[in-house]
Amino acid sequence: MARPIVAFLSDFGTRDHYAGTLKAVVLSVCPDATLVDIGHEIPAHDVLAGALELAACYRYFPAGTIFLAVVDPGVGSARRGIAADCGDHKFVAPDNGVLSAVFRESPPKKVVELTERKYARPTVSRTFEGRDRFAPAAGWLAKGIALVSLGKGITNFHTIDLPRPDVAAREITGEVLRVDRFGNLITNIDRRTLEQFSSGGAIAVSASGRDIARIVATYAEAPAGELCALFGSTDHLEIAVNAGDAARTIGVGRGAKVQVRLV
Amino acid sequence: MARPIVAFLSDFGTRDHYAGTLKAVVLSVCPDATLVDIGHEIPAHDVLAGALELAACYRYFPAGTIFLAVVDPGVGSARRGIAADCGDHKFVAPDNGVLSAVFRESPPKKVVELTERKYARPTVSRTFEGRDRFAPAAGWLAKGIALVSLGKGITNFHTIDLPRPDVAAREITGEVLRVDRFGNLITNIDRRTLEQFSSGGAIAVSASGRDIARIVATYAEAPAGELCALFGSTDHLEIAVNAGDAARTIGVGRGAKVQVRLV
Amino acid sequence: MARPIVAFLSDFGTRDHYAGTLKAVVLSVCPDATLVDIGHEIPAHDVLAGALELAACYRYFPAGTIFLAVVDPGVGSARRGIAADCGDHKFVAPDNGVLSAVFRESPPKKVVELTERKYARPTVSRTFEGRDRFAPAAGWLAKGIALVSLGKGITNFHTIDLPRPDVAAREITGEVLRVDRFGNLITNIDRRTLEQFSSGGAIAVSASGRDIARIVATYAEAPAGELCALFGSTDHLEIAVNAGDAARTIGVGRGAKVQVRLV
Repeated sequence: MARPIVAFLSDFGTRDHYAGTLKAVVLSVCPDATLVDIGHEIPAHDVLAGALELAACYRYFPAGTIFLAVVDPGVGSARRGIAADCGDHKFVAPDNGVLSAVFRESPPKKVVELTERKYARPTVSRTFEGRDRFAPAAGWLAKGIALVSLGKGITNFHTIDLPRPDVAAREITGEVLRVDRFGNLITNIDRRTLEQFSSGGAIAVSASGRDIARIVATYAEAPAGELCALFGSTDHLEIAVNAGDAARTIGVGRGAKVQVRLV
Repeated sequence: MARPIVAFLSDFGTRDHYAGTLKAVVLSVCPDATLVDIGHEIPAHDVLAGALELAACYRYFPAGTIFLAVVDPGVGSARRGIAADCGDHKFVAPDNGVLSAVFRESPPKKVVELTERKYARPTVSRTFEGRDRFAPAAGWLAKGIALVSLGKGITNFHTIDLPRPDVAAREITGEVLRVDRFGNLITNIDRRTLEQFSSGGAIAVSASGRDIARIVATYAEAPAGELCALFGSTDHLEIAVNAGDAARTIGVGRGAKVQVRLV
Repeated sequence: MARPIVAFLSDFGTRDHYAGTLKAVVLSVCPDATLVDIGHEIPAHDVLAGALELAACYRYFPAGTIFLAVVDPGVGSARRGIAADCGDHKFVAPDNGVLSAVFRESPPKKVVELTERKYARPTVSRTFEGRDRFAPAAGWLAKGIALVSLGKGITNFHTIDLPRPDVAAREITGEVLRVDRFGNLITNIDRRTLEQFSSGGAIAVSASGRDIARIVATYAEAPAGELCALFGSTDHLEIAVNAGDAARTIGVGRGAKVQVRLV
């Protein structure tokens, strides 16, 4: 039988022991788990960035995977801890919206607040609930307990606004949501929205007021060094430079406006 | 039966192959091991930093976990390699004090020098003993050999000074030992020391001469942007800024003086 | 029976979800695999750096290990995907030379182009073939299918030039191929080349025109702060500074010339 999989996403970095400690606690509860680091380099306290990265990858994990997502600027406050069952996947996280983008795609069948003390560590630090509350809960789910054992069901979990593009008759105004390691500017304009808008007609794209020369199917179709627009691996419009870095070329980052116009 | 766990801490970074090579060698000896990266971003050659990170997390790992800690500025010199049994956990490391902070909390029951050639790789590089001497030893421990098989017992293993706070009648002078990713300044003043000192009386905290406005139970109790003091997840006094970065706010780092006075 | 091992090397970094997604896809095909991150911090699009890091570590992994190496500046272009059997190890990668340094040491017994659609994901993104084509192929190899099932055999796979030292009668001119985290400058002059050249005679080493004071067996033999030359863990000549950073000391990086002269 396949071993349970626990996948980790956090803003803990890897310079400190925090991410290692999360993994230690999960293994203490469920020594048999397969651990997978998605990444721990979410910018500190950036709940939106964590939400978007998690949403971009969770569906590629095997059914049954348990995700531990700890981006937690409100640690120690009254914000709750939650666990969610989204059908194929389960999630443990602070109740601060870090699961919002996942929930938009896979509405949760059940969300519980982590109230059951016996599935937390005996003493819960008020500065590291990831270690004392969230990691044990993920470990117990990996060990096979039912989600509802972790606490009482809730429906008023917290969500954050995920910026949506503004679609007018002749223009879509979106914005850059993610800047990846390669300097690609990934927007909130998804393929379906754009295709409905353009109905196959000609369009022009600009980013932060700068015209994008061409729309391509992949980076390699653009001349090296030239700005281009394309649909990236999550099917959202992105601005890129073949063999280059679009963020540096244009000098913009997250939040930059991207416009698509009928021409 | 649960698989053996080997946890890795080093200053190798992840840009080079070195950390991957450590893991390769452990798996070559014990293909069945579960590998856990605590982290490889200890500052280069910083034995004290490695010692402190390891001490902050080892106890959260399951009993039986084997730790491979390679921060090794003296690689190739006469400094020895050691393996230690601290009861619930075993450790393999250069004999340079990187285990000192663990040993302070969990005095070793047995320490051996890695003298047994058959548990090293056939040729031992003088610039990468992590690969050729320490990783094989960790792998063999994971495979189940007795610690004493690795070499002869020693008691004169190397330790480094772990800076202790200076406790006077009306003042504790400690220092910042770790600056974490969030800019929290974690000191060497532990909760017990401070509670014995203050006996519940009022105290005032300053860091690098700067008064800390309030003492809180968790970050979220301080107004955003304001310096505060609290006991963090390892029960040591730390200086923090809610939703901010204390190291940047004060402009200090490791070694900065932190004072607690009776008022 | 030991579980299959899949080892990952990429330029995806760990800030984005890409590396996590590769691992997710491998586990989706082969939930039983042991995953090992070699590293994801190869400089963006730097095929040569990826090739050299992979070559420096692959042989330390157990026989049977499958490597997924994704440094892929030509993603979405006509460049092919390949899988290679090098005897003890198998590799999946874009056909852009990232396996060149491995192939020089372990000539492939068989290379196939990844043409078999049923071992890719149903839809192959033109900007993330790592996820949709390479990771599934690695997963299927881990699951035990034969390499030849992945596609048709080829012999005209792409290789890149690996800079070779220029060996004259009284002088070798090599260059720095890698600069590691410690600032060590690792050259393309291997021990055998140098020993044949010098026949045991006295030599002098200079890097970027700067004389290297001494040739040592390990870092610790040089006075702290002094430049030295030695054979590092891959048996190539490297320029180092004991307890220091040679790259910063000399102010050079990859491509810097290193000369060895008979004296």
